[in-house]
Amino acid sequence: MLTITNAHELKMKRSIDSGTNEQQCAVREILQAVKEFGDEAVRACTQKFDGVVVDELRVTEAEYVTAKALVSQEVQEALREAAENIRAYHQHQARTSWFTTKESGTMLGQMIRPLHSVGLYVPGGSASYPSSVLMNAIPAQIAGVERIVMVTPPDREGNIAPAVVVAAEIAGVTEIYKVGGAQAIGALTYGTKTIPSVDKIVGPGNIYVALAKREVFGVVSIDMIAGPSEIVVLADETAPPSYIAADLLSQAEHDPLASAILVTTSQKIAEEVAFELERQVASLPRKKIAEASLLSYGAICVVNDLEEGFAVVNRLAPEHLELLVEDAFSHLGKVKNAGAVFLGSYSSEPVGDYFAGTNHVLPTNGTARFSSPLSVDDFIKKMSVISYSKADLMEHGEKIVRLAEAEGLTAHARAIQVRLASDNDKS
Amino acid sequence: MLTITNAHELKMKRSIDSGTNEQQCAVREILQAVKEFGDEAVRACTQKFDGVVVDELRVTEAEYVTAKALVSQEVQEALREAAENIRAYHQHQARTSWFTTKESGTMLGQMIRPLHSVGLYVPGGSASYPSSVLMNAIPAQIAGVERIVMVTPPDREGNIAPAVVVAAEIAGVTEIYKVGGAQAIGALTYGTKTIPSVDKIVGPGNIYVALAKREVFGVVSIDMIAGPSEIVVLADETAPPSYIAADLLSQAEHDPLASAILVTTSQKIAEEVAFELERQVASLPRKKIAEASLLSYGAICVVNDLEEGFAVVNRLAPEHLELLVEDAFSHLGKVKNAGAVFLGSYSSEPVGDYFAGTNHVLPTNGTARFSSPLSVDDFIKKMSVISYSKADLMEHGEKIVRLAEAEGLTAHARAIQVRLASDNDKS
Repeated sequence: MLTITNAHELKMKRSIDSGTNEQQCAVREILQAVKEFGDEAVRACTQKFDGVVVDELRVTEAEYVTAKALVSQEVQEALREAAENIRAYHQHQARTSWFTTKESGTMLGQMIRPLHSVGLYVPGGSASYPSSVLMNAIPAQIAGVERIVMVTPPDREGNIAPAVVVAAEIAGVTEIYKVGGAQAIGALTYGTKTIPSVDKIVGPGNIYVALAKREVFGVVSIDMIAGPSEIVVLADETAPPSYIAADLLSQAEHDPLASAILVTTSQKIAEEVAFELERQVASLPRKKIAEASLLSYGAICVVNDLEEGFAVVNRLAPEHLELLVEDAFSHLGKVKNAGAVFLGSYSSEPVGDYFAGTNHVLPTNGTARFSSPLSVDDFIKKMSVISYSKADLMEHGEKIVRLAEAEGLTAHARAIQVRLASDNDKS
Repeated sequence: MLTITNAHELKMKRSIDSGTNEQQCAVREILQAVKEFGDEAVRACTQKFDGVVVDELRVTEAEYVTAKALVSQEVQEALREAAENIRAYHQHQARTSWFTTKESGTMLGQMIRPLHSVGLYVPGGSASYPSSVLMNAIPAQIAGVERIVMVTPPDREGNIAPAVVVAAEIAGVTEIYKVGGAQAIGALTYGTKTIPSVDKIVGPGNIYVALAKREVFGVVSIDMIAGPSEIVVLADETAPPSYIAADLLSQAEHDPLASAILVTTSQKIAEEVAFELERQVASLPRKKIAEASLLSYGAICVVNDLEEGFAVVNRLAPEHLELLVEDAFSHLGKVKNAGAVFLGSYSSEPVGDYFAGTNHVLPTNGTARFSSPLSVDDFIKKMSVISYSKADLMEHGEKIVRLAEAEGLTAHARAIQVRLASDNDKS
């Protein structure tokens, strides 16, 4: 299925869907309607796009109870344990305010504050992803966000996936609304009578959701626009081919646009993984998706040595990077661009997707060059704090005047001079 | 000049320039040309828009020497001292990688890495702002960014402001190119033969620069789009009216679109500040700008008490907030939304613009609800690190399988099962 290539021929083929003009116009119309007509527009859009009339937008207590009855105890228990691990990891990201003092009386600092409210978009459709609810909501909860509002489109019966409701409760989501698409983004941005506006919107969605998020960027904050999933496995001759193939397929099954790439120093491993991929993909329920992904965006690349391997990896800047090499830790410092790095044979990528505690919302499309995993940092803001002492102003005031005047900003200079002068008056 | 209003009547009038369709098209054309034709397009645009032919785009050693001869020793000295203060403050923002270990052998961590390269846009035109060079470049330097590339448009003689060159050298900028406008953003995004592509572009610019940054967002990272400057002064009856008026004017002189607002518990202070504004503005060189700003976006608002005052402040979410109230520190915890908070009579806003050490690149347009001052955080990225032990995979593997299967992602489950099975084989 995959031919074996070398480092020069290897390019990560990125797929970015920027939407058509028609889609952009449709999204703008929906946002405008929600801004103007609130709940009425939200309900009309839901009827039009989801094919269902939803009277009560907010999920009720009774629906929580029903959801819990529909999800197996084992899955609920696993979600709870995963949530604990996610909490434990993200707790380390919590920031503290700090300040510095000088004997002259000046104090400078940085104050940390949680965002007040956050909206979490959860896609509907055939599959439901309770793990994403945990990954998006728990860092917000740790940051201290007061309102964590979840939105998700209802099915044709007006219901939402029970596992998602269960995960929301575990993760500390404060309210859930049955609304999806661009209308959900509009409601979270502008607020309606029922749905409150928020400071930031996070979570993945289809092209309409992505376009709507891009459109409201600036009025509210948004997280990165998620692209298709990617994995690069860097392996030497010690890596088990069956593990590698299984991990590549775990990304390939996500989406025909997903990308799974093996970079290896061993021609033998390359050939064995190619064989294993054929063998393993055959019995996958999502075989068609995985095959399409491998054919369009998959690759096996043989490199001369690990140095060349890391050069390839850093050029690709993958969302997920597995280091299946001997003494993996000693190579960690060579990784410059990646969303998450998985070390050794037992750090299979799904371990990070579901359970270890790290976040599975990671930079895609090569943005790991400059972006980071979703974290508590995404739900706080910082404020500078300046308390300048009279002594320091008297000592340094003239320099500030000089700098302001060098930039032609006289009123800036005068704001200092008025203080210097009034001090002279008194003395 | 300003009438006195109350909290209910007060609204912060935001001015956002999203550009015309013509401007957007022009920007897209320029970006496309630079992407395709590189330096050739950059030179052509420079000739067209800046009216000058620039053969050597990169600033030479000789130009550094000339610049230093043209800037007064006093200003150079003040810039160096300001740079030291900025460095000292931002040093506290440096992040460290961390990890956690478990007895089972699992290790989870977060690795901090600097961005590799950053582009800093510095506007040209009549005024030059060396202070902005310091504020943008120093946090990048502290983060450990290897290449800090500055771009700024040349004047009609092909020169750039000497103070900006001097500031660049002080701040650790590694290279300067004489190019501005959308063509500069294009060059930094796609790279040309002369100008390297970068991972992130920061710094303010005119509407063409802002539109170009918005356009390339995602290919590279960008900082926030800066809006006009804003200040809110919250004052009680102890605050000196002449200081308040001077500080309001220091923002108003920036731009006819800038906003300066006094919120006070004292009718007397309100009236005295109104009088002081009239008196002080009369002798300002930038009188017309300041008057236009005050008339369109200025306000004096009398509130019943400080509680109402802070409610107004948090609603406005100003870029700069001065607390000219008794025992200002005891009120700091009431500030929920602001870019920078200045406490007490001697913390005049220009102290933060130039000298104290905090950053003067701050969130505008109410984005302080969810955005932060420019900081070292803006020049680093994080990577998750997962080293999962065999013991943990054997113990928790089945739960991961269960979660993956609940989401319908069989290949995810199999990536775990292949490891569980191979362990059983051996035992």
